[in-house]
Amino acid sequence: MKSTGLIVEYNPFHNGHFFHVEEARKRTNADVVIAVMSGNFLQRGEPAIISKWARAKMALLAGVDIVVELPYAFAVQHAEIFAYGSITILHALKCNYFCFGSESGDINEFSSAIDLIENYHMEYETSVKELMKTGVSYPTALSQSFKKIFTDHKNPIDLSKPNNILGFHYMQTNNTFQSPMQAVTIKRKNANYHDEEFASSTIASATSIRKATFESNQSINGIEQYVPKTTSNVLQDYYNGYQTFHNWELYWPFLQYRLLSIEETDLANIYEIEEGIEHRLKRHAKDAVSFHDFMQRVKTKRYTWTRIQRMCVHILTNTKKNEMFRHHKHVEYIRLLGMTENGRKYLNQIKKDIDVPLISKVSSIPNELIELDIRASNVYSQGLQEPFKQKLFKAEYAQPPLYIHNN
Amino acid sequence: MKSTGLIVEYNPFHNGHFFHVEEARKRTNADVVIAVMSGNFLQRGEPAIISKWARAKMALLAGVDIVVELPYAFAVQHAEIFAYGSITILHALKCNYFCFGSESGDINEFSSAIDLIENYHMEYETSVKELMKTGVSYPTALSQSFKKIFTDHKNPIDLSKPNNILGFHYMQTNNTFQSPMQAVTIKRKNANYHDEEFASSTIASATSIRKATFESNQSINGIEQYVPKTTSNVLQDYYNGYQTFHNWELYWPFLQYRLLSIEETDLANIYEIEEGIEHRLKRHAKDAVSFHDFMQRVKTKRYTWTRIQRMCVHILTNTKKNEMFRHHKHVEYIRLLGMTENGRKYLNQIKKDIDVPLISKVSSIPNELIELDIRASNVYSQGLQEPFKQKLFKAEYAQPPLYIHNN
Repeated sequence: MKSTGLIVEYNPFHNGHFFHVEEARKRTNADVVIAVMSGNFLQRGEPAIISKWARAKMALLAGVDIVVELPYAFAVQHAEIFAYGSITILHALKCNYFCFGSESGDINEFSSAIDLIENYHMEYETSVKELMKTGVSYPTALSQSFKKIFTDHKNPIDLSKPNNILGFHYMQTNNTFQSPMQAVTIKRKNANYHDEEFASSTIASATSIRKATFESNQSINGIEQYVPKTTSNVLQDYYNGYQTFHNWELYWPFLQYRLLSIEETDLANIYEIEEGIEHRLKRHAKDAVSFHDFMQRVKTKRYTWTRIQRMCVHILTNTKKNEMFRHHKHVEYIRLLGMTENGRKYLNQIKKDIDVPLISKVSSIPNELIELDIRASNVYSQGLQEPFKQKLFKAEYAQPPLYIHNN
Repeated sequence: MKSTGLIVEYNPFHNGHFFHVEEARKRTNADVVIAVMSGNFLQRGEPAIISKWARAKMALLAGVDIVVELPYAFAVQHAEIFAYGSITILHALKCNYFCFGSESGDINEFSSAIDLIENYHMEYETSVKELMKTGVSYPTALSQSFKKIFTDHKNPIDLSKPNNILGFHYMQTNNTFQSPMQAVTIKRKNANYHDEEFASSTIASATSIRKATFESNQSINGIEQYVPKTTSNVLQDYYNGYQTFHNWELYWPFLQYRLLSIEETDLANIYEIEEGIEHRLKRHAKDAVSFHDFMQRVKTKRYTWTRIQRMCVHILTNTKKNEMFRHHKHVEYIRLLGMTENGRKYLNQIKKDIDVPLISKVSSIPNELIELDIRASNVYSQGLQEPFKQKLFKAEYAQPPLYIHNN
């Protein structure tokens, strides 16, 4: 069976994602589509709107055959580490292709960029480091370094675009394998990643869909045209089952409590807390009345919103530098969240060749390895009231991988 | 002016307290009654039902002239350290007398007990240590050691009674001063410390008063016969102003969050966490659905309810062993919470002779010294919703000492 891997967050799964799954399958002529998906906390430092189980279900009902979890140690990370983790997992699952959405849409642009970077490796690295020192953000430093070194290059890819930069790192990681997967990119349709407003009648960004949901008092009525019916159903079931969708405001009391009770020296040991920002975070935690208010107070030119949000997730989950460094270098397990009948056939076919343990339960591997994922799920559950908190909490230990019979 | 010191928590101030203040004033012929009062967290490891400001107000309106705060480092402690802190503060404030309620009611019994303990010091200490090793609680070890060594003594004081043991330690600390205060004890009326039910028509324990309040949906209608009118007013004002009274359940989400996200090695660094109880606490935090449920699960014969509650307060406030050891050896400041006109006259009279800084604002002394008190107040405020959280939170920094004109 031929397989194609996708790197996803599905927060929530919408028509644009549906298009991407269909298109990926078609272009690569795949028998199986595998998605590696961030768990309960996402790359941009946010809690997912619904749990990883519900998001896996949305994906499986809409055409994805296998969903595995991108561990916390790779998910809540900047593009380079996020890409390393997800591509390594897809490769370990023996994908023939991987397919990503990008603003560029032209795989040759990515290949050229990779080649150029390999040829001018040293200059590029030096430039990125120097620009970072001047206080610009990481994506800006990458983009500017690229432009600076290759001004004579005719069609430089725009690495300030979030999906282009992810794609670039996917390709870089993939190139390190002896037998790399074949890379395919699909131009993103209509909606931009950060769009907050609806821009078309059927395609909208996940950001705008979440915004509409929270602004309409957690009703999904206003978003139904932008998501498959299966997504509406799963969202509604989740709301019925847990009485809320998740956003940062749900966790603000815990973040504030933590910031007010942690010592500065301990805060400085949390992953990504650097350059004395611990003072700033503690100071503003006193005055802020909501997460949004807090972010408005702490953000600076030096620190992007996303970077601070990621710090906040690590503070919330109490993830320390030494723990993260221990975990994020190697993919030590692949956790299966769900599969279709078709997906199961594929896994049966490849399982004897997989080098990384594919696990169905957290109890299947030593606790230290999967500790960060468990802790992240524990903290994610804290956003709910009892008895829903216990219910979600226990799913982390008791929920077997979802299994969907193909239609 | 002659002054008499009291050691109090006023959680809340009730008719028994009123009787004690009046009786103390009468017996010692005092011009001024000074109360050293636990802050927002109390000796038995509980959040106070209302803030220290509101509790100071109740005391001042009911006849106390000066209220100062017993720092967190002394307040949330077993009897010996609690007594050391409070007696040292009263002595520093030049009290001529101190007066405590006890089950015994006979000051000579305490003096004899102290004499005997001094004479048989070594045997006593050894016995306490050995009994503690067998797994009995601290009060039991004291009481049994006392009985064991002085079986021939005619009237051994019953040190298993909570107020007797406190009184014993008050007297012990007081005896270490060059010019000790004169000790007076008043037999406690009707209500026992731990009584949960009302036992008389006007005198009830603070425990039963709090219980009645929480059981009647935070209405104070059922407790008015047991408290002065001034207490009813202050309680009602607090409820109107902050929309809730405080109990442990309000903080359970934060304690659970903390227990689920802290590493065991860090938990073992929290003050009073000993002998591997960190595993037990973390394990049960997963299954408990309320603070009460949690306590039922973790308590053992080895650990008294109070001892575990104190651990929980220290976990909640993130108070570490090294911090506590740094702070609880010396009284480094006395924080004034409120005074009457009469109280102010007294403070003006003694202020040139006080050796310990008497402060009106947290900003008056170096932050490291008063850090634990500020943190405890920050955490206490987290029990409220916005905008009440901010309001209480800011009082810690902005509230000047209360000033009540005498009638």
